[in-house]
Amino acid sequence: MKGFAMLGIGKTGWIEKDKPVCGPLDALVKPIAVSPCTSDIHTVWEGALGERHDMILGHESVGEVAEVGSLVKDFKPGDRVVVTAITPDWGSLEAQGGYAMHSGGMLSGWKFSNFKDGVFGEYYHVNEADANMALLPSNLAPETAVMLCDMMPTGLHGAELAEIKFGDTVCVIGIGPVGLMSVAGAVLRGASSVYAVGSRPVCAKVAKEYGATDIINYKEGDIVEQIFEKTDGKGVDRVIIAGGGVETVEQAVRMLKPGGRIGNVNYFGEGGAISVSLAPWGNGMAHKLIAGGLMPGGRLRAEKLASLITNGRIDPSKLVTHVFHGFDKIPEALELMHNKPSDLIKPVVLMD
Amino acid sequence: MKGFAMLGIGKTGWIEKDKPVCGPLDALVKPIAVSPCTSDIHTVWEGALGERHDMILGHESVGEVAEVGSLVKDFKPGDRVVVTAITPDWGSLEAQGGYAMHSGGMLSGWKFSNFKDGVFGEYYHVNEADANMALLPSNLAPETAVMLCDMMPTGLHGAELAEIKFGDTVCVIGIGPVGLMSVAGAVLRGASSVYAVGSRPVCAKVAKEYGATDIINYKEGDIVEQIFEKTDGKGVDRVIIAGGGVETVEQAVRMLKPGGRIGNVNYFGEGGAISVSLAPWGNGMAHKLIAGGLMPGGRLRAEKLASLITNGRIDPSKLVTHVFHGFDKIPEALELMHNKPSDLIKPVVLMD
Amino acid sequence: MKGFAMLGIGKTGWIEKDKPVCGPLDALVKPIAVSPCTSDIHTVWEGALGERHDMILGHESVGEVAEVGSLVKDFKPGDRVVVTAITPDWGSLEAQGGYAMHSGGMLSGWKFSNFKDGVFGEYYHVNEADANMALLPSNLAPETAVMLCDMMPTGLHGAELAEIKFGDTVCVIGIGPVGLMSVAGAVLRGASSVYAVGSRPVCAKVAKEYGATDIINYKEGDIVEQIFEKTDGKGVDRVIIAGGGVETVEQAVRMLKPGGRIGNVNYFGEGGAISVSLAPWGNGMAHKLIAGGLMPGGRLRAEKLASLITNGRIDPSKLVTHVFHGFDKIPEALELMHNKPSDLIKPVVLMD
Amino acid sequence: MKGFAMLGIGKTGWIEKDKPVCGPLDALVKPIAVSPCTSDIHTVWEGALGERHDMILGHESVGEVAEVGSLVKDFKPGDRVVVTAITPDWGSLEAQGGYAMHSGGMLSGWKFSNFKDGVFGEYYHVNEADANMALLPSNLAPETAVMLCDMMPTGLHGAELAEIKFGDTVCVIGIGPVGLMSVAGAVLRGASSVYAVGSRPVCAKVAKEYGATDIINYKEGDIVEQIFEKTDGKGVDRVIIAGGGVETVEQAVRMLKPGGRIGNVNYFGEGGAISVSLAPWGNGMAHKLIAGGLMPGGRLRAEKLASLITNGRIDPSKLVTHVFHGFDKIPEALELMHNKPSDLIKPVVLMD
Repeated sequence: MKGFAMLGIGKTGWIEKDKPVCGPLDALVKPIAVSPCTSDIHTVWEGALGERHDMILGHESVGEVAEVGSLVKDFKPGDRVVVTAITPDWGSLEAQGGYAMHSGGMLSGWKFSNFKDGVFGEYYHVNEADANMALLPSNLAPETAVMLCDMMPTGLHGAELAEIKFGDTVCVIGIGPVGLMSVAGAVLRGASSVYAVGSRPVCAKVAKEYGATDIINYKEGDIVEQIFEKTDGKGVDRVIIAGGGVETVEQAVRMLKPGGRIGNVNYFGEGGAISVSLAPWGNGMAHKLIAGGLMPGGRLRAEKLASLITNGRIDPSKLVTHVFHGFDKIPEALELMHNKPSDLIKPVVLMD
Repeated sequence: MKGFAMLGIGKTGWIEKDKPVCGPLDALVKPIAVSPCTSDIHTVWEGALGERHDMILGHESVGEVAEVGSLVKDFKPGDRVVVTAITPDWGSLEAQGGYAMHSGGMLSGWKFSNFKDGVFGEYYHVNEADANMALLPSNLAPETAVMLCDMMPTGLHGAELAEIKFGDTVCVIGIGPVGLMSVAGAVLRGASSVYAVGSRPVCAKVAKEYGATDIINYKEGDIVEQIFEKTDGKGVDRVIIAGGGVETVEQAVRMLKPGGRIGNVNYFGEGGAISVSLAPWGNGMAHKLIAGGLMPGGRLRAEKLASLITNGRIDPSKLVTHVFHGFDKIPEALELMHNKPSDLIKPVVLMD
Repeated sequence: MKGFAMLGIGKTGWIEKDKPVCGPLDALVKPIAVSPCTSDIHTVWEGALGERHDMILGHESVGEVAEVGSLVKDFKPGDRVVVTAITPDWGSLEAQGGYAMHSGGMLSGWKFSNFKDGVFGEYYHVNEADANMALLPSNLAPETAVMLCDMMPTGLHGAELAEIKFGDTVCVIGIGPVGLMSVAGAVLRGASSVYAVGSRPVCAKVAKEYGATDIINYKEGDIVEQIFEKTDGKGVDRVIIAGGGVETVEQAVRMLKPGGRIGNVNYFGEGGAISVSLAPWGNGMAHKLIAGGLMPGGRLRAEKLASLITNGRIDPSKLVTHVFHGFDKIPEALELMHNKPSDLIKPVVLMD
Repeated sequence: MKGFAMLGIGKTGWIEKDKPVCGPLDALVKPIAVSPCTSDIHTVWEGALGERHDMILGHESVGEVAEVGSLVKDFKPGDRVVVTAITPDWGSLEAQGGYAMHSGGMLSGWKFSNFKDGVFGEYYHVNEADANMALLPSNLAPETAVMLCDMMPTGLHGAELAEIKFGDTVCVIGIGPVGLMSVAGAVLRGASSVYAVGSRPVCAKVAKEYGATDIINYKEGDIVEQIFEKTDGKGVDRVIIAGGGVETVEQAVRMLKPGGRIGNVNYFGEGGAISVSLAPWGNGMAHKLIAGGLMPGGRLRAEKLASLITNGRIDPSKLVTHVFHGFDKIPEALELMHNKPSDLIKPVVLMD
């Protein structure tokens, strides 16, 4: 079969591979829609995962089941499904402990275009199919549903990690597609003021539509000072980090009230280390909690988030600024993500 | 001063009393707006709190500060304030343990028209004024702000007690003013489907506007069966009880999935006891958790919930179906609450 | 193969059956030690699970792996293992939601001697073997380790459900083997005073050894009054219910402080319903939370609890008052459990 | 009155001051026992709080009530009391939000020898006396009880922040008096293996007595490598930081499993900033949570922890290696803390 792959660091291209083998618990899926992710960009052009050769890219896809293993009970060929970017081994010790995304080791629930071929192929392999796929609701467009694979669960996880309570003031750092979902997620957990940090007008517009009360443009001065100005020097109750570099953690700590929480869902690829000055962190005594983690994957999560869309609680279709048609358009969509033109939030490729 | 009081069980009337004494930590407040509550009805006509004589009624009010004690730092005469129905003793052991509403004993954070005179007087007394009042935001109408005293904190507490997560299906039993706030609160915590149980069209309409996906009319059959029909026999993840009699607890348990939670904010005045059949409760083994509690009061809570209104996250003004003008209209408003005409959700009396 | 079975309600006997079939994810295990449980008594003589024919009994066992399926990675024939009484389907939606013990439906993680043959056979079947068995530590005697299957995880779950905090006063109702583990578990979560309710001297002695500060004998008067006497009328912060009838829930509510929690791990087989009077429950407003649930099973749990024993934090060997030798002694041990002589806490049968 | 004070950075001495004024909610207390703290050393010799002149030192004391304000209800002159090092303003917004130790601003619940005179005077002032003092149990020796002021609540808070669960493996970094209480606290929350990092034999001995399973001597190599060796490369579930420099945070992150938590109770006075390398932190995605905070103070906490001592759950008297007699011995005790001889854990000064 054909797949669009990372050939090595900095190089991509079409390759020919054998169709993946479908184990007894697994499924093979034919993509209906896929979406390139910033992670694909980091993987290829920054070597974020290290060297990889001829690895098919992509981890966001809805598709049609082509084949299921003998032990799969709930799906059959022809079913249209959402496949989450993170596909855990559910029996692992980590999953039993509540951290399925780290099944088999830190971040190891992330398999597509990491430990195995991704979804930019004619077929892709889904481990533990009953547990890692959800039926695509019939009233949900594939180009919207593909946001359920990574953007929406990751963005909303930021709001979960930050443990937002009714009336909390929240700063969301970063308003790319994940950060925008964090804005919507913060509102959907009961945030009052939501300060969204970003600069791109296309994103700022959608942030406002999702409920951001203020846009903080980091190009207009220190974001912490801007937050203090807007909050009469009080700072915020919660911070979600969904973009930016390692310096955002210190910024988040500085703008937090004592007792505050940071929920990070940004993959820090560069910068070596995060650093937090002692004074704003109360010398370790301020109860300013720093949490961060990979999105939860799996069927239950996908079903629950899908129901948020179908019930009109959240509309991720606003993220999809560019829709391509045809499997062969994958490189173009990926290139778009690489170049990030000013009108882009997120591209989707529909197979037909 | 004048006050509208419970003279004894079943009897109300205007009485004359001395102005309350303002201790060093306290404030005296002149009402700007008050709202009668179903609790006032229970107190007077059902003797829910037992016998009370010449006790001024009412616990929902926004007002103007008339006097403050010598130790009050943050308020001064002339300030316009929201006073929460529950006014805890913040230094008590219960408050230190996280349950300020029970300061000094079970439910004892509830003082107005319970242990002391309520807010239907020319002045009322607020204990620990710095901690139990919040400034009324200038852009918030008093008739809306008075919903911050009880309806909104109680309704939203139902969503808190139920610990709603993203995508949970929720049933809200009861859609009086508190239940309507529970509907809005459930949506604001990330519920997907919200099944609202009630029968009055005026309430059903607002429930829909607040995000209820389905109205379950208990007059049209067993509500548990209706829930199972609508959920393909799966039941719901969470139940908020905000109305109905003691039988609702069993109904809630029956309609819950294992691992589900019930958040009760209904004051069960009659029926003697709740009862839960063993089978639907998994013989004690189903992880169907039953929680219930009085609303949290105090300044922080009032400020946070006020910010939800001023930021447009929730609009409790939809609850206010009847507005009266003049202190002397309090009996009429209370009588309305007693008679519950079909177009009533909640009446408010503005003093001017 | 041979197995000791429930032939029908009220009847037990040896039967001959085919060896269970080992699926690709499963294991067949030969028992090294088994222990009859009060549940077995309820199952047979009270028909607690309804009619069952020729179902091999027992769900507590450590054993030696005889066979593993083709997909099993971490175990091989000859390994000595602990098998938890609850053996969930880890990929199920319930498990993904954090309630693996209800995988496939309420209580359905409980399979042994419920949905399939139990452990009182020459071989027994373990589903998802990698996830539902743990290696038996070499320094842990099988007769002690068999307490890891049900007594210890169930008893400790009571302490978990009650969410005990440092210095909490705790009442444990019931001091059979599960209740004794709840006493030890409460101490191991930081309880200060632990009031243990029971009457049998053999159990009271061990309760004291596990850290109970007071024994409350229900034969000497109302246990709630006894608790109030011992606590100067304050009541307790937490209650664990590990024995007794449906009336214990009301007793627990009555003795709780506002803001308290009940953790129930008792299977209520009789009495039809629990009932809680409104007044002590604060008419639904007291924040007296009622939680109850089946023990968590699985490998991680077994490994963690085993490490509590091997590190000397808890010593369940005190529960084992009677040890039998030989497979054929199973009926005798079960009969002992049925008759409950005064010196019995828990019997174990070693196969050799 | 006389007091032993910081005269300026690096200088201490006896001073004469007016007796503090007792406000209506306050108490004046005459010390029975006091204990110098490492914080006093940091305050004086490292200028950790900045310049302070003629400020009486000390924040750990039990004493006898000499005077109470007119609004104090629960205490009277002659009562023997424990006073917590942190004495919050309980009505503050921070306290209402669950973080009383930050009442009035980050760390501002810490008042003794910070914002006001400490306890090394003939009298000291306690704000909100009803809420910030607890009766000294009659069966508790003052030299032990003084550990309730700071050592025990701080050490145990480390275990709380780390959210230890049954069977967790825990590393406690630092085994000074606070770290030793963290060791005991970890065991009392259900830890299995407890790896205690320290080098002083006197502390290592007590760590073992409190339940440490292994002592990790940082002088014998990288502590993270030592932890990996002892855990077969798996790392630990939880880390409590109770000593060491800013580098401990990175060490803690490195030794943690994904899904782990760090509870810091160490006041980082030097080093400018904490830093965490991206790789062991899973590039922000590992769910390795970093929490840290000042001890909770107040009466409820003191009563609860006192009950742990009187019920024999924990014995902080092991910390007290040196007892002095006489008010005038305070400088000697402080000097001892400054010099830290090899046999010192914690000194106490009894007034008589």
